[in-house]
Amino acid sequence: MHDGNEVSVLRLGHRPGRDNRMTTHVGLTARALGANRVVIAGDASNSKTTIEEVTDRFGGPFTVELTDSPRAMLRRFDGTVVHLTMYGLPIQNVEDDVRAAHTEAPLLVVVGAEKVPFDVYERADYNVGVTNQPHSEVAGLAVFLDRLFEGAELDREWTEATHRVVPKETGKLVEPAEES
Amino acid sequence: MHDGNEVSVLRLGHRPGRDNRMTTHVGLTARALGANRVVIAGDASNSKTTIEEVTDRFGGPFTVELTDSPRAMLRRFDGTVVHLTMYGLPIQNVEDDVRAAHTEAPLLVVVGAEKVPFDVYERADYNVGVTNQPHSEVAGLAVFLDRLFEGAELDREWTEATHRVVPKETGKLVEPAEES
Repeated sequence: MHDGNEVSVLRLGHRPGRDNRMTTHVGLTARALGANRVVIAGDASNSKTTIEEVTDRFGGPFTVELTDSPRAMLRRFDGTVVHLTMYGLPIQNVEDDVRAAHTEAPLLVVVGAEKVPFDVYERADYNVGVTNQPHSEVAGLAVFLDRLFEGAELDREWTEATHRVVPKETGKLVEPAEES
Repeated sequence: MHDGNEVSVLRLGHRPGRDNRMTTHVGLTARALGANRVVIAGDASNSKTTIEEVTDRFGGPFTVELTDSPRAMLRRFDGTVVHLTMYGLPIQNVEDDVRAAHTEAPLLVVVGAEKVPFDVYERADYNVGVTNQPHSEVAGLAVFLDRLFEGAELDREWTEATHRVVPKETGKLVEPAEES
């Protein structure tokens, strides 16, 4: 996770307005489950602001970037590209290979909104299906990251938080964070 | 999963229009990752239709219900209630207990949209956090189900599908389904 090679998430196909909440959830899920950054293709300044506000409050490190040229990013990415798609190979069959690749080089995890261009399938080193059923790019990303990190992401430490949630059996408790 | 006690997902706080896509993704995730049914509180007929169309095409069994009285459902539920919330106990600490409870009785997994009423926290047998970070009810549900079923949901068989996706290293292949 944060002590290994970087994991970036690339969100393709964002449509301003219509996709704001889904894109925000992609970014927040990437952050919460151990990725280092999310890159959003298109005009997603609302989502960027929301994700950064959460990072300011509950900690990082985590970065949010916008790009107008996701294809160039994909072409130039120096590492392993994983594209999450219901048409891909079952995650349970390829996760060991992906995990091994991640020990060698940075990982770029691509999630689409609606239709993903065919050249993304071709560029990807792994097209991976979290089931071959239609469901949600947010769900697929979550299961993928939890399996990539084998649960270690759940125990990570956060830095530069102003607040932290204290787990409770019942109810809600949010405290000012103390930096150690 | 489908050979054990039933797992239902209850979606609270659906706001028509604004939450349509998130609620649809909650339902599709519940279906894809091994739950038996989703119950949506409120007027979510659009989401219901979409989820049922996916079930008609790619198989079941999976059912979608709408309810106007989620509190009565929670009160009367005969089994274990799990409420997914960033304020709850870490999933990695309670998942063994929840899995054991599921071998004894049906499970109801509650996911909210915005603010969840306090009586849900009190009614829940387990308030569970998939991290104590804000992210997405869809992501939380996905990781929860994958851990509950320990990955067995990824290998399930679907019945009465008209189509099925054939996993491919590159590209997309959807075939007419043959019932065995």
